[in-house]
Amino acid sequence: MEITRRIADYVVSTQLEDFPPDGIQAAKGAIMDCLGCALAGSREPLADILSEFVQANGGGASASVIGRGFKTTAADAAQVNGAISHALDYDDITRALKGHPTAVLMPPALALAESQGATGLEMLMAYMLGFEVACSIGEAMSPEYYDELGWHPTGPVGALGAAVAASRILKLDRDQTAMAIFLAASQAAGLRQNFGTMTKPFHAGAACRTGVTAAQLVAAGFTASLDAIEGRFGFLHAFSGGAGYEADRISENLGKTCYLVESGIEIKKYPCCGSAHLALDATARILDRSPLNAANIEKIDVLVDFDPPRSLIHDRPRSALEGKFSMQYCLAAAVLDNKVGMDAFTDKQVLRPEAQDLIPKITMRRSADFQGQPSWVEAYNQVAVHLKDGTVLTERVDRIREGALRGGTMDEIIDKFRDCASTILTTDDTQELVAGLSELEQLPDIRHIADLLRGDGAG
Amino acid sequence: MEITRRIADYVVSTQLEDFPPDGIQAAKGAIMDCLGCALAGSREPLADILSEFVQANGGGASASVIGRGFKTTAADAAQVNGAISHALDYDDITRALKGHPTAVLMPPALALAESQGATGLEMLMAYMLGFEVACSIGEAMSPEYYDELGWHPTGPVGALGAAVAASRILKLDRDQTAMAIFLAASQAAGLRQNFGTMTKPFHAGAACRTGVTAAQLVAAGFTASLDAIEGRFGFLHAFSGGAGYEADRISENLGKTCYLVESGIEIKKYPCCGSAHLALDATARILDRSPLNAANIEKIDVLVDFDPPRSLIHDRPRSALEGKFSMQYCLAAAVLDNKVGMDAFTDKQVLRPEAQDLIPKITMRRSADFQGQPSWVEAYNQVAVHLKDGTVLTERVDRIREGALRGGTMDEIIDKFRDCASTILTTDDTQELVAGLSELEQLPDIRHIADLLRGDGAG
Repeated sequence: MEITRRIADYVVSTQLEDFPPDGIQAAKGAIMDCLGCALAGSREPLADILSEFVQANGGGASASVIGRGFKTTAADAAQVNGAISHALDYDDITRALKGHPTAVLMPPALALAESQGATGLEMLMAYMLGFEVACSIGEAMSPEYYDELGWHPTGPVGALGAAVAASRILKLDRDQTAMAIFLAASQAAGLRQNFGTMTKPFHAGAACRTGVTAAQLVAAGFTASLDAIEGRFGFLHAFSGGAGYEADRISENLGKTCYLVESGIEIKKYPCCGSAHLALDATARILDRSPLNAANIEKIDVLVDFDPPRSLIHDRPRSALEGKFSMQYCLAAAVLDNKVGMDAFTDKQVLRPEAQDLIPKITMRRSADFQGQPSWVEAYNQVAVHLKDGTVLTERVDRIREGALRGGTMDEIIDKFRDCASTILTTDDTQELVAGLSELEQLPDIRHIADLLRGDGAG
Repeated sequence: MEITRRIADYVVSTQLEDFPPDGIQAAKGAIMDCLGCALAGSREPLADILSEFVQANGGGASASVIGRGFKTTAADAAQVNGAISHALDYDDITRALKGHPTAVLMPPALALAESQGATGLEMLMAYMLGFEVACSIGEAMSPEYYDELGWHPTGPVGALGAAVAASRILKLDRDQTAMAIFLAASQAAGLRQNFGTMTKPFHAGAACRTGVTAAQLVAAGFTASLDAIEGRFGFLHAFSGGAGYEADRISENLGKTCYLVESGIEIKKYPCCGSAHLALDATARILDRSPLNAANIEKIDVLVDFDPPRSLIHDRPRSALEGKFSMQYCLAAAVLDNKVGMDAFTDKQVLRPEAQDLIPKITMRRSADFQGQPSWVEAYNQVAVHLKDGTVLTERVDRIREGALRGGTMDEIIDKFRDCASTILTTDDTQELVAGLSELEQLPDIRHIADLLRGDGAG
C-alpha cells in the first residue's frame, strides 16, 4: 500500500487500546501542559493582534479562543490557539519531530472537538494519532530538513499532524484523510529565519489552521492527490531538499513504534527555546552549589552540540522574543535572577544593564565531539563559569532519553498549569480544568472544558 | 542595503511613470484576462465548495467573490478569487516565474482595493509591483525550485508577490513591507504532485490569502524578520533546496529590468496547462492544413523540452482536471473537436471513447536537443501526426520571446473576457467592465468594478 494511504488507514482504524498506558498518560500531560502555555500566552502582544484580527473578520462563533473570552470559526480559533500555545516557547518538544508537537495538535483537535461536540476520548485520539503520524514523518525527513535548509520543523511536518488530528475528529474516511494530508502538505510552511519574532509562534498557528481547513474542505468534497508523502513531487522530496529522506521508515514504524513513548513528551521548565534547556539545567546545578554574583564572573563558556547555534540565533538580544532565542541572555537571566521564569522575558528585563553587561561574557561553541553530527544527538551540554578569582565552576547535563514524560512529572505539569492559569482563570475554574483534563478520555463532551478555557478574556 | 529591504524600498517608492506604456498596457490586459478566467471559473465545482466554506465561516462582507454574488472578508475573497482565477488553467503565465502571475496578484489587489475603497490606479500599481517583485525573485531561484524539488512555482513565489500587492494597497512603510514579505514567506507553499486536482488552483488562492493576511497582520503590529529573502534560513535558501540561487540578481534587476515587458504576459488560448500550448499551436497548424479523422491516425509523436513531462503528469487521464494536465488528452481533443475550448474539459468529454482510444496513440518525449536543459528554454515543440496511409504531417511552433503581451492582443483579450463572462454576467455589465478595465488607472474607486464582477451569483 502506498505510504500516504497506509498513514490514512492507520488514522481511521487505530483505537485507544492500541496505545500503552504511559503513552496515553503522556498525551494527557502534554495537552494539559500546552493548554497552560496557551493560557499564559493569551496575554502576549501577538495574542492581542491575532484576536483582534479574527474578531474583525467576524467569523461565526463555533470554537473558543483560549483565555480571550470569545469564540470564532474553528479555523481561526485553531490559528490563534496554536500561536498562543507557542508564543512563550514554553510548550513541549519531542525528539522525532525536533520541534513542538502539541502546539500544532491540541488546537485543531480542541477547536473541531468543540465545534462538533465531540467527546474527550475523540479529542485525545485525534491528538495521539496526529502525534504518531507527525513523528513518523519527522523521522523520515532528511537531516537537511532540520539542520540545513531553514525550515522551522514545527511548521511543515506539524501541518500534516494537524490535518491528521482534524481528519480524525471529522471522521473522514481513508481516502479523504489521505487527501486532507495532501491539502495540508500543499500549505505546509515556516522558515527558521523568523525565530525571535512573532512569526515563529505564528507558524504553529498556521499549521493548526491548515490542518482544520484541509479536513473541512475535503469533508466538503475538495480533492487532492492520494500520494502526498511519497509522490515524486510530494512532501518528503520537496521539504527534504530532494534527497536524504527515507519514506519506507514511515510504514515500518507507524503503529509499531509508539512515538509517545519512544520519542516522548519533553516538558519545558523554562519559557524559552528548548535548545537552551540543557545549558540552563547545568547552570541551575551550579547555582544550587552556590549563588553567583555577576560582578565576580570573568566569563561563561557553554559547550553544545549542533542545534543550539542553529536555533539560538540572537547572541546580542535586544527584545523579549530575541532573548528567548539567545543562549547568552538565558544564562544571564539564570545567573541574575537565580531562576528563569516568565518574568525574565520582557523587553525591559532583556535590556537591563546587568544583563547586557553579562551577555558579552557568555560564549557558546560546539563541542568537537559533536562536529558533523546532526542536531539532537548530543549526549550533554556543559557550562563552565570562570570567576575572576580563578575558580571554575563546571556542570554538564545529559539529555533525558527515556520515558514517555520527560523533564516533568504529572504533578509538576499540574503545578505548571496552575501557575500559567493563575492570572487568567479563577482558582475554581482552574481546579475543574485540572480534574477534567486528568480524566480527558472520560469526558462525554469537550464543550464544557472549552468554555472554561475560553474564560472571560479579563484577568 | 539588504535585499528584502531593497525590495520593500522599491515597492513603496515606485510610481506609474516608472513603467513603460507597453508594460502598463500588458498589466491591464492581464488583469482583464484573469478576471474573465475567474468569472468562468466561478462555476467550477471547487468554486462551489470554497464559496460555501467561506460563507459558512460567516466572515464580514468587505470584498466581493467574483461571479458568486456575495461578499466576505478580504482574505477569504482573495482566496476564493485566486482559486477560481486558476481553476480552468486558462489564466496567463510568465517566463520569469514559470507560473501564473495574475491569479496570485489580481485577487489580493482587488479584494483589498475594494475593502479600502482604493482607486483603479492604486490597484494597478499594486498588481504591477507584485509582478515585478515576484519575477525578480523567480529569476533568482535555483533551477531545482522549478524542475526538481516539486514546488508548484506559482505557490511559494506567488505568495511573496501577493504580499507585495497587498502591502502596497495598505500603504505599508518600508520595514512593514519587508515584514509582510517575510510573514508571507513563512506561509509560502504548494506541491506539484497535486497537479490535476482541485488543490492546484487552491495553491493560487492560498497564496492570495497569505498575501492579504500577511499585510493586514503587519499593519496591525505583527512582527517578522526583515531578511526574508536573503537570510541564511530564508526563502531563497529553503525553497531552492539549499543551493543554486542567486540573491544578487534581485537587486541587480529590480527597477531596471521591466519584467512586464521582458518576461511578458503570455495569454492562454486554451484552458489547460501552459506546457501543452506550443504543441496545441502546432496541432492547430496541422488542422488548418486539413481536418483529421481520428480513425486514420496511426500515432502522434510530440517532441518537447524539459517542462511538459514535469507538468503534464497524466498520460492516461480519467477526469476533467487530469485532462488539463495531459498532453495526450489535449491533443486528442484538438483532433476530435478541431479546437480546444472550455467544453473539452468535462469528465464526460475526457472519458468519451473516441478520446480514450486516441490517447494511447499519442506519445510525448523530450527532444535530444533539450536534454539536460532547465525548463522553459525550449525553442519549439514539434508535433508529427502519422496517418495510416503513411503520410506524416509535421509542424513546429516556437515560443514567443518578445513583447509585453504575448499570444493575444488587447482585442483578443476583450473577446476572451466576453466569452468567459457570457454565461455569468449581463451583456451590459460585461460591456461596462470592459470599458472600465480598459481605463483602469482612471477609475476613482474600484468598488463599482467589484460590484459588477460579483454579479448576482446566478447565470
